[in-house]
Amino acid sequence: MGINFTNFLSSKSKNKRMAEFQDLDHIDGVAISTVCANLYKDPRDDLVMFYFRDGANYASVYTQSKVVSENIKWNLNQKPKKIYSLIVNTRNANCFTGKQGYKSIEKIGEIIAEKLSQKQKEDDGSPKKIKSKEIMFGCTGTIGELFPEDKIMNQIPSLIEKIKYTQNKYIWMKAALGIMTTDTQPKMAMEKCQIGNSEIKIFGVAKGSGMIQPNMATTLGYIFTDAEISNEILKKLLKKNISSTFNAISCDSDTSTNDMVSIFSTGKARHVKIRSLSDEKLKDFDLSLNKVLLNLSKRIVADGEGASKFITINIKNCKTEFDARKIAFSIANSPLVKTAIAGEDPNWGRIIMAIGKAGVVLNLDKLSIKLGDYFIIQNGKLNNNYDENIASDYMKSDTIEINVDINCGSKNFTAFTMDFTKKYVEINADYRS
Amino acid sequence: MGINFTNFLSSKSKNKRMAEFQDLDHIDGVAISTVCANLYKDPRDDLVMFYFRDGANYASVYTQSKVVSENIKWNLNQKPKKIYSLIVNTRNANCFTGKQGYKSIEKIGEIIAEKLSQKQKEDDGSPKKIKSKEIMFGCTGTIGELFPEDKIMNQIPSLIEKIKYTQNKYIWMKAALGIMTTDTQPKMAMEKCQIGNSEIKIFGVAKGSGMIQPNMATTLGYIFTDAEISNEILKKLLKKNISSTFNAISCDSDTSTNDMVSIFSTGKARHVKIRSLSDEKLKDFDLSLNKVLLNLSKRIVADGEGASKFITINIKNCKTEFDARKIAFSIANSPLVKTAIAGEDPNWGRIIMAIGKAGVVLNLDKLSIKLGDYFIIQNGKLNNNYDENIASDYMKSDTIEINVDINCGSKNFTAFTMDFTKKYVEINADYRS
Repeated sequence: MGINFTNFLSSKSKNKRMAEFQDLDHIDGVAISTVCANLYKDPRDDLVMFYFRDGANYASVYTQSKVVSENIKWNLNQKPKKIYSLIVNTRNANCFTGKQGYKSIEKIGEIIAEKLSQKQKEDDGSPKKIKSKEIMFGCTGTIGELFPEDKIMNQIPSLIEKIKYTQNKYIWMKAALGIMTTDTQPKMAMEKCQIGNSEIKIFGVAKGSGMIQPNMATTLGYIFTDAEISNEILKKLLKKNISSTFNAISCDSDTSTNDMVSIFSTGKARHVKIRSLSDEKLKDFDLSLNKVLLNLSKRIVADGEGASKFITINIKNCKTEFDARKIAFSIANSPLVKTAIAGEDPNWGRIIMAIGKAGVVLNLDKLSIKLGDYFIIQNGKLNNNYDENIASDYMKSDTIEINVDINCGSKNFTAFTMDFTKKYVEINADYRS
Repeated sequence: MGINFTNFLSSKSKNKRMAEFQDLDHIDGVAISTVCANLYKDPRDDLVMFYFRDGANYASVYTQSKVVSENIKWNLNQKPKKIYSLIVNTRNANCFTGKQGYKSIEKIGEIIAEKLSQKQKEDDGSPKKIKSKEIMFGCTGTIGELFPEDKIMNQIPSLIEKIKYTQNKYIWMKAALGIMTTDTQPKMAMEKCQIGNSEIKIFGVAKGSGMIQPNMATTLGYIFTDAEISNEILKKLLKKNISSTFNAISCDSDTSTNDMVSIFSTGKARHVKIRSLSDEKLKDFDLSLNKVLLNLSKRIVADGEGASKFITINIKNCKTEFDARKIAFSIANSPLVKTAIAGEDPNWGRIIMAIGKAGVVLNLDKLSIKLGDYFIIQNGKLNNNYDENIASDYMKSDTIEINVDINCGSKNFTAFTMDFTKKYVEINADYRS
């Protein structure tokens, strides 16, 4: 909990902009509202609506768990051309709630579609009749509890009433706060980029905290852009960029039933048409999207439950990226490595243990390991001048970098994780009470 | 650390004999001696010799890590017909020690072979010239530190001097204590069985504690019997029985570079000849060997670092044992499940999460989950009469049983694990200091 965001983000990224909260402002075509539906004992905003007045192109990636929440089933069952609203509730995961959970989503979707259609009429001369299949849902919280349909239903009128067409940093902050569970910090990121000569915005909010693991885990990430990009290209962009960002983080190796990352494109910025993923004009957008996703991912790790250290694991020169990934996550998910780092102990023997258990065939004589820039192992041998004091000093930092060179190929992978502290156990032994 | 051994072992096994320390006595053909080689700051016995005066048939299974300690490399390189001595040191894993570590083993092996050959001459009219390849080594402790060749060399004379040909419970206890690292309890087990009309003894000692995981992990387990069984049959017996015992336990999902389980058969008990694994006369021995291995495995889990609960995970009716195993270990290794159990929270949502992330295709409508005998989920639905108070009460026990019925086939697997406590983090954040 004590990680200094400014430190960890600026020290490595050398990008001061990532370090502090960025001020997300207006983005054309997105409206936000948040309410308290009394899902928690202590009232807080726990229900968030993103409203796309003229619809938004979209793409989503979901958890790879074989047990999937009812809202994700809903999202997967609808295939609308555009999404008109994304509704996110916390406190209840709507998972293992069976037919009740799914029916609640259906009902809530219908009511929201109806109310939003009404709003369209009131606001506009040529209103659109919104259908429930054009509503997307995100849920996070406890698994297996009855989905609080009534509480959510009761708040729909006020959710719609509160819609503001002009966004500012406070409204974005409220949205980021409204989707949090045990997060201690809201997570926002933004980049501006060019498509042709037009300036394009890419904003994002996310939540993380528990169950963070390779394939996302109770991670919700929502990206908004005023670019006009087709569903098909959005899907490819998201898939391409998720592997090195949201799927490169691990807090505790557990995967949630509710993970989702979505991108919404309102098309309000006028720019040259993008015809394919390989379009040169998409390059800057692609890079900026990666930055937003990576920024959010890092914030999730840094705010991982009980985290006191932000850990970057760079695995270099493997035969395949798959191998590099396996080794990176074997280290990232090793309780013994993570507890050693919590204890500021440069116990590199455990790093070697974790490399070994990854099951990738290695030539140990070629292996090099550095803590930050400090060589521990060089060509399979302990550095002749290895000084435990230097290594110990390094471990005191908030941000730890483990650099492993396998020297057997040319493929790399970087994973991000946190340490394993007593605080983690405390939070998770006591989550529901 | 607070698990009541008597409780957890007797409550489930209904076998009082497993609960308490068993008094291991004399076993023909095995001699033991222990010394302090000053491998630790605070002196304790840290070097143990098992001496088989007339040799012993043997079999071993080793870690599946791709990084393997030098003593295991040594053991794998030798193919003697019989083993004459097993030497175990703690404090230093002799892993990532490179040529120095391997050469030390070579040297120590030669000296021990020479000194034991000398002892044979002194003791016996027809002495055997023991070769270094007939010496087996077990090491456990910190990875990557220089192997303390001199300290061990210095103690060989006294190690041999102390050899006693008649064992009693105190000597076995000293051996079990001498191989411990951070274990808080020595681990011993014994069974008596019949081969034909002869009574046969099977004794075992083990150590565990950290890095305990599916494929064994800093686990050393040594089994001794006075039966006469060939190397080939011993190997098959060990392999057959390890899967449901030492390879069914997980403490923290980390695998060590040093795991080994060996069995030694002195052949001193006269009995009918055993010709194959399927020999009917081997049945009782086979069952008893499994009991000894299971008893030791459970002791290792119960004494897992920081453990406050002993957890049994029964997965029933999968399509394959591989699936059942995957689900069992997905639950056993989930930090969120383990911290919930530490907090005595019947958070069954996390069990479902862990089942989901195992990646096994499921029919959720057929899933049942019980905590002990108490139904939580029945045919994919929360038990209508589910009472959180009953479930909470159950979680207060020292021994927790998670019973999952997948209802898709007929294959089962049982895994054993412990909870994840603040104490675990404390021990492992601070292991080397």
